[in-house]
Amino acid sequence: MSTGGYITNCGTEGNLHGILVGREVLPDGILYASRESHYSIFKAARMYRMECEKVETLNSGEIDCDDFKAKLLRHQDKPAIINVNIGTTVKGAVDDLDLVIQKLEEAGFSQDRFYIHVDGALFGLMMPFVKRAPKVTFKKPIGSVSVSGHKFVGCPMPCGVQITRLEHINALSRNVECLASRDATIMGSRNGHAPIFLWYTLNRKGYRGFQKEVQKCLRNAHYFKDRLIEAGIGAMLNELSSTVVFERPHDEEFIRKWQLACKGNIAHVVVMPNVTIEKLDDFLNELVQKRATWFEDGTFQPYCIASDVGENSCLCAQHK
Amino acid sequence: MSTGGYITNCGTEGNLHGILVGREVLPDGILYASRESHYSIFKAARMYRMECEKVETLNSGEIDCDDFKAKLLRHQDKPAIINVNIGTTVKGAVDDLDLVIQKLEEAGFSQDRFYIHVDGALFGLMMPFVKRAPKVTFKKPIGSVSVSGHKFVGCPMPCGVQITRLEHINALSRNVECLASRDATIMGSRNGHAPIFLWYTLNRKGYRGFQKEVQKCLRNAHYFKDRLIEAGIGAMLNELSSTVVFERPHDEEFIRKWQLACKGNIAHVVVMPNVTIEKLDDFLNELVQKRATWFEDGTFQPYCIASDVGENSCLCAQHK
Repeated sequence: MSTGGYITNCGTEGNLHGILVGREVLPDGILYASRESHYSIFKAARMYRMECEKVETLNSGEIDCDDFKAKLLRHQDKPAIINVNIGTTVKGAVDDLDLVIQKLEEAGFSQDRFYIHVDGALFGLMMPFVKRAPKVTFKKPIGSVSVSGHKFVGCPMPCGVQITRLEHINALSRNVECLASRDATIMGSRNGHAPIFLWYTLNRKGYRGFQKEVQKCLRNAHYFKDRLIEAGIGAMLNELSSTVVFERPHDEEFIRKWQLACKGNIAHVVVMPNVTIEKLDDFLNELVQKRATWFEDGTFQPYCIASDVGENSCLCAQHK
Repeated sequence: MSTGGYITNCGTEGNLHGILVGREVLPDGILYASRESHYSIFKAARMYRMECEKVETLNSGEIDCDDFKAKLLRHQDKPAIINVNIGTTVKGAVDDLDLVIQKLEEAGFSQDRFYIHVDGALFGLMMPFVKRAPKVTFKKPIGSVSVSGHKFVGCPMPCGVQITRLEHINALSRNVECLASRDATIMGSRNGHAPIFLWYTLNRKGYRGFQKEVQKCLRNAHYFKDRLIEAGIGAMLNELSSTVVFERPHDEEFIRKWQLACKGNIAHVVVMPNVTIEKLDDFLNELVQKRATWFEDGTFQPYCIASDVGENSCLCAQHK
């Protein structure tokens, strides 16, 4: 079994590539992706004119494998192309790759009738350093995996790495005579600086350096989540994640100032190596102060986030 | 009429975007592109599952509008999505936009039944500075136009600009709540350095500076073509181009040393602002020297390039 890949322009290019390889290997395959997958997955389905089944998620943000199996059983006549998330965009949830494979087997899909693309844009480069984390490896029946280079690794421009099985890449590549080479990428052109930054960072920090940074990120994320809850703010942190989800701040100016990404009633902070305890404290102290003014006269109440992250993580008036 | 666009990662992203907008506006449209179009156009057709008609070309590399009209007439029941080249990859040929539009009218295609994407990756930023060159403008019924930023402009990383009509962009864009913005791009992520380099170069050189550089490129290209022919080497230079096409050198080592792009029996040199008369002379002198040794004992003959560029431009044993 041999694999190959290339340096992409971003996580989206990796996903567009992985899903395209899947479609070229299984032309009438249906794309299955949890509804908390990155929007580039659904963009791919539309671009590539693929049938697409959105799969429900658990409160954690992980793919709901019971719903996945039910949907597989409804379409047993067609092959399955599955997007598995290693760190969803909003909640940092890690889909259970082994359970996904098990459900495929239970639903009667043999290995030549499914293709799994693993979207590791956010957490793919961190998970190998997390103790007891499940493993993403080509020893399992996956077709491709992509990661970003400008998130945890910190490259100064968007970039990523896409790896796939070489046996599949022939389905995609075309001889381009005037380049005297084959093109099997999405973009054709590649940024030559990105591999230099990736190489430099990998060598400068090394395996131990990355391990330490992952541990620091996870530690800081736990600290942040605990302090949010102590302050009476509903929050959730997945076990395999440094993304802390919490009650959306009531003030758009505060959201803009801290450049918070929000979705419905929740906001999140992705604790990367540059996010220090001091910065988290600053943020938290300001949030606590502001909340006191937002909820002072009783006109506003903290948002309920039970439908986003479950009742256990919600500290609204009804659930606390 | 208002237009908008974005800074892409390369010419291919512009083409992928333009063709996708065309497909979303005319979902069952057939893609028409000359066979000398950039390979990303045919990649798009395959990615997007579009029916595609390859149109023949003239010796110059321009789209053969008679063949185009004949193919249009064969598919009058379906809308047409057309790729128009402003500088083809190999020969630098400029398709006749006005004639393409005329043929669409003659074949009975009203403006709501066709979409034209203009691929100006190579020559799109040079043509506005060429006297008497035809104009690419949204006053004509085109849908989108893309150019590269790392060729004539010289940005140090692959990038480009894609411009389209805003009325079409809604067909493509999706609200992405967690970004608090809409995504209407292919890649989602964008390189923030590219606009800075583009802005800097545009401002440093200015309109007059670009005009001078275009004139220098065209002058040097003419000089190079004339010297090739003087030396008995078959060569062609399109009127609206700085790409000189000539007989492929017989020696792969020579091709590698000069990093020549070759296709069949022809090679080309794209005369950009960094290609000086001195460099062209060095190249030519070495080529003339090497040719003397390649053809010394009569075992090898110069390639015939008549089928690539026409008999008039060929100086092989038969045509000279």
